[in-house]
Amino acid sequence: MPIITLTTDFGLRDSHVGAMKGVIWKIAPQVQIADITHLVSPQNIQEAALLIRRAVPYYPAGSIHVVVVDPGVGTARRPIAGRLGDQFVVGPDNGVFTALIEYYESLGKPTEFVHLNRPNFWLPKVSYVFHGRDIFAPVAARLAYGVPLFNLGESITDVVRLHLPRPLAIAEGLRGEVIHVDHFGNIYTNIMREDVAERQVRKVLLAGTFLTDFVNTFGEREPGCLVSLFGSSDHLLVCEVNGNAARRLGVKVGDPVDVHLE
Amino acid sequence: MPIITLTTDFGLRDSHVGAMKGVIWKIAPQVQIADITHLVSPQNIQEAALLIRRAVPYYPAGSIHVVVVDPGVGTARRPIAGRLGDQFVVGPDNGVFTALIEYYESLGKPTEFVHLNRPNFWLPKVSYVFHGRDIFAPVAARLAYGVPLFNLGESITDVVRLHLPRPLAIAEGLRGEVIHVDHFGNIYTNIMREDVAERQVRKVLLAGTFLTDFVNTFGEREPGCLVSLFGSSDHLLVCEVNGNAARRLGVKVGDPVDVHLE
Amino acid sequence: MPIITLTTDFGLRDSHVGAMKGVIWKIAPQVQIADITHLVSPQNIQEAALLIRRAVPYYPAGSIHVVVVDPGVGTARRPIAGRLGDQFVVGPDNGVFTALIEYYESLGKPTEFVHLNRPNFWLPKVSYVFHGRDIFAPVAARLAYGVPLFNLGESITDVVRLHLPRPLAIAEGLRGEVIHVDHFGNIYTNIMREDVAERQVRKVLLAGTFLTDFVNTFGEREPGCLVSLFGSSDHLLVCEVNGNAARRLGVKVGDPVDVHLE
Repeated sequence: MPIITLTTDFGLRDSHVGAMKGVIWKIAPQVQIADITHLVSPQNIQEAALLIRRAVPYYPAGSIHVVVVDPGVGTARRPIAGRLGDQFVVGPDNGVFTALIEYYESLGKPTEFVHLNRPNFWLPKVSYVFHGRDIFAPVAARLAYGVPLFNLGESITDVVRLHLPRPLAIAEGLRGEVIHVDHFGNIYTNIMREDVAERQVRKVLLAGTFLTDFVNTFGEREPGCLVSLFGSSDHLLVCEVNGNAARRLGVKVGDPVDVHLE
Repeated sequence: MPIITLTTDFGLRDSHVGAMKGVIWKIAPQVQIADITHLVSPQNIQEAALLIRRAVPYYPAGSIHVVVVDPGVGTARRPIAGRLGDQFVVGPDNGVFTALIEYYESLGKPTEFVHLNRPNFWLPKVSYVFHGRDIFAPVAARLAYGVPLFNLGESITDVVRLHLPRPLAIAEGLRGEVIHVDHFGNIYTNIMREDVAERQVRKVLLAGTFLTDFVNTFGEREPGCLVSLFGSSDHLLVCEVNGNAARRLGVKVGDPVDVHLE
Repeated sequence: MPIITLTTDFGLRDSHVGAMKGVIWKIAPQVQIADITHLVSPQNIQEAALLIRRAVPYYPAGSIHVVVVDPGVGTARRPIAGRLGDQFVVGPDNGVFTALIEYYESLGKPTEFVHLNRPNFWLPKVSYVFHGRDIFAPVAARLAYGVPLFNLGESITDVVRLHLPRPLAIAEGLRGEVIHVDHFGNIYTNIMREDVAERQVRKVLLAGTFLTDFVNTFGEREPGCLVSLFGSSDHLLVCEVNGNAARRLGVKVGDPVDVHLE
């Protein structure tokens, strides 16, 4: 039986996610369900796109990833499901799958979507405000149970894509931006290891601070040092060893970052 | 193998819930365990009652729901287990199952309880302060394993019930109260879709503010608008589109809400 | 199929834990995975040691416990796996397993470890900063799948141990310290029921306050009372009934506690 993962902005205090799990197991009792996170910032589609991009490719073939960050629920925005390489996704057509689509396209893998427009695969009664429970959970469970993707709705080729900011070349190297601050206060930029390629990081300029200490890992420096390094998803990070770099530097998502290369 | 769900006020920083899962799997290794929430406000029985009411009915028949919001642990309050329609519940006899009992009674389904007074179904050593681990987890696992409910203890018909506030008729319509604020800051009232029935919501008066914008879903209005609507569990909600209505209006649980109908 | 548990300081907002689960299921698709906690204070090895000590012994024989509180990731600190009684552990060699080792030693059970130095059991590409995903998750999955512990690396007998503070005898009884504050604000000390043994707790002195009310459980006193009692893991606790003792008394981890016995 495949795995179903859940990523939402529902938080952890309510029982919405619990209801979704019940719906899934009622249709597909043997499926295993994993929470990716339910603490996506409310309505933050771009953050959700980044978070699932970093987890989904590690899953077994045939896993099904449900994402419910859905400010347009109940409006004309379409519910969709898709196949990206060997993974399935289910959620709103608001761009939340952009980073995954681009990743699987870059590998030359198939990416295909359907508009979920066949209510016989949903709960009998669909609310205006909770498609996670009423549409996406039952559709994910039916995929897990073996219903072919193209039975669930009409094929579409125009899914919404976010504009995900890419770094620009500047005289000294690259100009990117902060795209995420993690639980530790580590600062994620959109500058990737492949953008730097064979060159060396000489300086990182962020929030008026020049960082010159580029390392492989935190433990190479003493607690309290500011360092930059490539993280486990190959993003250039700025970190305080055993500390919170974002708080220390007053950095937030969207702030510019310059990287000087040699 | 049935599903076991867990709902507690234990929070997410400690390992109490982890210990309960170990106890369950030691007795019933194949069972799937889902967390509903562990962030019930400490000792808030009424909140727990509401949260499980919104999730439990979505589960497969035979699922077992353990609730540990238990300020009376180790005192004379009884440990109980019950069958409500096609679901089982296990927890303290402090009223936490009231909303579920009323729901299944309203459907004409059986509701029956036992007093858990047979220590041979518990852990060998029972602490005074953690019946979740020592009594409720092993009892839930034995239910999952097939032990009949009425083997676990003596049948009782006098389980504690909370007084759950119901709205009153007023000249203009209904007077209810705020019963929950969710992760997004959406304000839940105890006024249900069925209380309004065929009439129309004209105005909602809450915290000195008159709301006149009644909608089907958030995305019908621009971010920042205050709206009211029926939520996915048919409660009347007051929400700020992509914002936090409770913080904006300074609303808390127990505050009165008037709904003018026509 | 065995259970795998996860304990980290990764928090709940990111998708690192989600990636680890994918890695595990790709190797061992049938395994059940339980989160113990992901809210260990960042880099707090001692706290993680305490939390897993309180959960692991409740698990079925053969369960595998992965702990990733790992400030030394990517440095010379060794990745290790071990068998402690009937449980397996996987994580960094930084002392995080000390409390469990001492527990199983006190029971006369075997405790044996290997240095994870065989990359064929890891992900093909190992990052400097995320051994949880790249080494510990795949190793745990291979243990679950039946690879013998001693195939995974070379046997070692010099794993790092923390110095876990033990109470001292003083004229009036015992002097210990605060080792944890839980979600409710209950204060955990390192004074155990077995340290007090047959004697009686007469007074507890903490943060300049003398507590004289020693009880079996919270519900014996009214909300707001300060009490001391033995918790469910046999630590001496100081608690406010239905309140937050740590906040009220201004107590933090490391503060001294005197217990007067008679």
